[in-house]
Amino acid sequence: MSKILRVNMTDLTAKYEDVPEKYKNWGGRGLTSFITLEEVPPTCHPLGPNNKVTLAPGMVTGTPAPSSGRISVGGKSPLTGTIKETNAGTPFSQHLARLGIKAVVVEGQPKENGKFWLLKVDKEGAELLPADEYVGKGLYEVYPALFDRFGKKAAIMGIGVAGEMKMAMAGVCFNDIDGRPSRYSGRGGMGAVLGSKGLKFIVADDTGGPGVDIADKDLFDTGRKKLTEALRTHGVTKEGGGLNTYGTAVLINILNEAGGLPTRNFSSGEFEGASKISGEAIAEGVKQRGGAGTMGHPCHPGCIIQCSNIWPKPDGTEHVSVIEYESDWALGANCGIDDLDVIAELIWLCNDYGLDTIESGGTIAVAMEGGLAEFGDGQKAIELMHEIGKGTPLGRILGQGAAFTGKALGVVRVPGVKGQNMPAYAPRAIKGIGVTYATTPMGADHTAGYTIGPEIMSVGGKVDPLEVEGKAEISRNLQAATAFLDSTGYCLFTAFAIMDIPEGLEGMVETCNAVLGTKWTVDDVGEIGKEVLKRERAFNEAAGFTKADDRLPEFMYYEPLPPHNTVWDVPDEMLDQVWEL
Amino acid sequence: MSKILRVNMTDLTAKYEDVPEKYKNWGGRGLTSFITLEEVPPTCHPLGPNNKVTLAPGMVTGTPAPSSGRISVGGKSPLTGTIKETNAGTPFSQHLARLGIKAVVVEGQPKENGKFWLLKVDKEGAELLPADEYVGKGLYEVYPALFDRFGKKAAIMGIGVAGEMKMAMAGVCFNDIDGRPSRYSGRGGMGAVLGSKGLKFIVADDTGGPGVDIADKDLFDTGRKKLTEALRTHGVTKEGGGLNTYGTAVLINILNEAGGLPTRNFSSGEFEGASKISGEAIAEGVKQRGGAGTMGHPCHPGCIIQCSNIWPKPDGTEHVSVIEYESDWALGANCGIDDLDVIAELIWLCNDYGLDTIESGGTIAVAMEGGLAEFGDGQKAIELMHEIGKGTPLGRILGQGAAFTGKALGVVRVPGVKGQNMPAYAPRAIKGIGVTYATTPMGADHTAGYTIGPEIMSVGGKVDPLEVEGKAEISRNLQAATAFLDSTGYCLFTAFAIMDIPEGLEGMVETCNAVLGTKWTVDDVGEIGKEVLKRERAFNEAAGFTKADDRLPEFMYYEPLPPHNTVWDVPDEMLDQVWEL
Repeated sequence: MSKILRVNMTDLTAKYEDVPEKYKNWGGRGLTSFITLEEVPPTCHPLGPNNKVTLAPGMVTGTPAPSSGRISVGGKSPLTGTIKETNAGTPFSQHLARLGIKAVVVEGQPKENGKFWLLKVDKEGAELLPADEYVGKGLYEVYPALFDRFGKKAAIMGIGVAGEMKMAMAGVCFNDIDGRPSRYSGRGGMGAVLGSKGLKFIVADDTGGPGVDIADKDLFDTGRKKLTEALRTHGVTKEGGGLNTYGTAVLINILNEAGGLPTRNFSSGEFEGASKISGEAIAEGVKQRGGAGTMGHPCHPGCIIQCSNIWPKPDGTEHVSVIEYESDWALGANCGIDDLDVIAELIWLCNDYGLDTIESGGTIAVAMEGGLAEFGDGQKAIELMHEIGKGTPLGRILGQGAAFTGKALGVVRVPGVKGQNMPAYAPRAIKGIGVTYATTPMGADHTAGYTIGPEIMSVGGKVDPLEVEGKAEISRNLQAATAFLDSTGYCLFTAFAIMDIPEGLEGMVETCNAVLGTKWTVDDVGEIGKEVLKRERAFNEAAGFTKADDRLPEFMYYEPLPPHNTVWDVPDEMLDQVWEL
Repeated sequence: MSKILRVNMTDLTAKYEDVPEKYKNWGGRGLTSFITLEEVPPTCHPLGPNNKVTLAPGMVTGTPAPSSGRISVGGKSPLTGTIKETNAGTPFSQHLARLGIKAVVVEGQPKENGKFWLLKVDKEGAELLPADEYVGKGLYEVYPALFDRFGKKAAIMGIGVAGEMKMAMAGVCFNDIDGRPSRYSGRGGMGAVLGSKGLKFIVADDTGGPGVDIADKDLFDTGRKKLTEALRTHGVTKEGGGLNTYGTAVLINILNEAGGLPTRNFSSGEFEGASKISGEAIAEGVKQRGGAGTMGHPCHPGCIIQCSNIWPKPDGTEHVSVIEYESDWALGANCGIDDLDVIAELIWLCNDYGLDTIESGGTIAVAMEGGLAEFGDGQKAIELMHEIGKGTPLGRILGQGAAFTGKALGVVRVPGVKGQNMPAYAPRAIKGIGVTYATTPMGADHTAGYTIGPEIMSVGGKVDPLEVEGKAEISRNLQAATAFLDSTGYCLFTAFAIMDIPEGLEGMVETCNAVLGTKWTVDDVGEIGKEVLKRERAFNEAAGFTKADDRLPEFMYYEPLPPHNTVWDVPDEMLDQVWEL
């Protein structure tokens, strides 16, 4: 029987509770959003004592289901003020699940400010230990020390100095398969919420744990095989496919050719340096430099897509893992930077300080527009990152994200929604993703309804990215399907295969049924997702969000984006139709 | 026939337009809010090209009506995101009115950033002149230079360096009767909006102007005399009364005794240093030091209340005008500072840099709570003000106000509503003013519905400040009456007399009828005010504000305030009842 582990930071207790009936069939995002809606007052201060952080592995996480090692982190976001779910792929999720933990709920706040704690969870139970010795240090220094102390078999959730300083772009860090602090639930500043609660680490070790109960093992194997087959067949996800060969940055050239790669703070959809930072360039650099350089690296055991990478320095020693498409774009094209070694260093700093790479890149771009550096000045970008890490006054501005930085510097062109900066797809050139940015309960977020599939990649259909018509429906359907997917523990990239190969989706649903004992069909997926979305929207509505918040920033309505020279012209009424569920 | 002067900062034109019929019976706040609702897209960026700033003298401003020299400044606020009206008493309002100008509407935005302009308005017309020579300088240096250039008879609206830097606590400055840059439409950052439009000054000279048409001169005289009599009779407003003798800071001791004087960032309602910064102490200091020291100073010609003052240095030379109650409290008690000379210097810096004193004090208090200085450290407070004026990174944080500073520093205890810091009355000890803070369309604002009259001063009734019951109705009625009053051009302090002396209100309404040709009765006042409030709320609703925004900050719900040790316990439902108009 799995449990909920409730960690109270006011009285420093960690207690196991039975899982209430209503939560039993939920996992991942579905569970974090459910608990957040039930337990967090929507109008509470995100960094006050009444917010809570919930961590939940997906429904099938911890089983042998392929590419299912996601963990969701949820609560009220200090960046957006909305409900937030942000997930990552990491062995940590599997450890929690195999320890029989359906969710960790972190609540309360120590009376004394500036003290930090570490939660140790293993088969013996859970306890809070002082963590002050790790405060103020980079995560690349601290993670090895923690593995030395708790053993290499453990898995670690952590926050960096950004989270300690309660910065709104502080992410929640997890280790990768080799122990690096490199897998992030980055978006929305949930690291700051953990910082406000004084919880710096969770160290989980599933050794001797009960594992994940599977109600119907035969059904599970049937489903697992179908899904595995689909993933191994689809061009995007198969071995030697686009993601495996070039990593997610395979999208750089594709988006650039589509005129939808946001460049220099979303002032163009084309970057003249795109080819130098593309997935192809990464693969070539890895090959040429050799040494530690690796493509096709998995973020957690059991991933069969393996889209991660390790970028080597010129001498072949390791620089950073991972140059992800979003990070590459955010700290590259969006800042006018075309040097992979600079981008690698910026990503390393994000990992070390505990920052969301997307918001970091968006923030540096806004700072550049505000005159703090020239676009393309990589060394100055690195200096700005250090300001954040040091917590200087300038760093305190930047660490709060792009919207905050724009306000401090009087920059009007801030490309965000609900306070969260947009990711790597230009909505004036790709209308559907703009609909998702505008309407997802999460603030501007591409993963919430990845219309890039049909709009750019011809996956799950094929539609014109510049066309407005029909995009509300596409976004809505994808948002619903994604809310389900984010609850399962499966990686979002399984979506490519299940959208195009019906047996893949069947298999996915069968694995969920096999674990949970449910009787869902593929036709239930959308409705289950809508349940999640309804809860998230209920939270946001009670927190004071309205249709007026479901809009792109004003400047996109009047400033044409080269090369298509199109403005944002999706009618407000169409955006509102998304939520006529 | 009065006109609207439309100033377009995109093409640098200033043109007179006829006043549309719908605006004819409006002035002051009623007019600025009407024009803002009609012309400003509620979801626009406050510092973008689509926001507008409207300046409007009141209905009777420019006539011999007593204490009627207010000017309203309206638009969308960069501090709150709401509609904003903020008014000041100054000869400038009278100049505009006597030039036949019902409103100045400033719109558009220069393509080139960092260029500034000066609008010159006189009987010959209106023209824009370059103002770059005044950029980056303190207003105490610039105002004399402008009077030298344009003549002592002129009146000047200006923004300081804070407005140039688009800081959200930048106010709009006006000269007092002696030409000092000391009368402020301070709240809500309207100085930043003017800064975003590149309009640094308006110089108005009514010499040879047409004056204000009075439709019925006999009725006007009748009304004027009734109101004058009421003002000269009421204990608060009469010559030698509380305001005239001690200035507005007469409230320091009164609020302190009531346990409602917010101290050290609203952590207590009692300040041990209150008597040292009280109105009585100011009057005593003025008397003892002599020289330039003055009590009973009027802010504009024709004011018969005369509550302003000039604070002298120890040697009798002028330090600053004016130590207003709100400024005295904000930069004094709320920062734990009990030294009038330090407070005078902080006010001088606000005037010089172009900052709202209330938000400045609130911000320094939050910065103190965030560890940037000890409460009570006046010299450090002065240094922080200089950071703002210099526009250092720290200054860029502070200049955006208390909520922004709280976010940058991770301070949860930020006593604001809708992003605007609370003024000098503790809502946990005085419930009615908390209802006004929560529900006014303006963000936390005492002037919007000054329940302190009945709750503390026994004016307009007498109710227990700690009692919850009935406060929604009191606040609603006062908010409506105030929306009317803010439209007339009369000073808010006339409210004391008209609430207690029926003939005073009669006289006020008669003067309005006499000028406008309307047939209002005293019974219409509330309805006229409600029309204004409905427009303001319509703007806010379209901008995305909901009931969730009509709340006090969360910490006031769980943290008791000494000495009464009461929390904020007005039910949300009661707050929502305020707007069942």
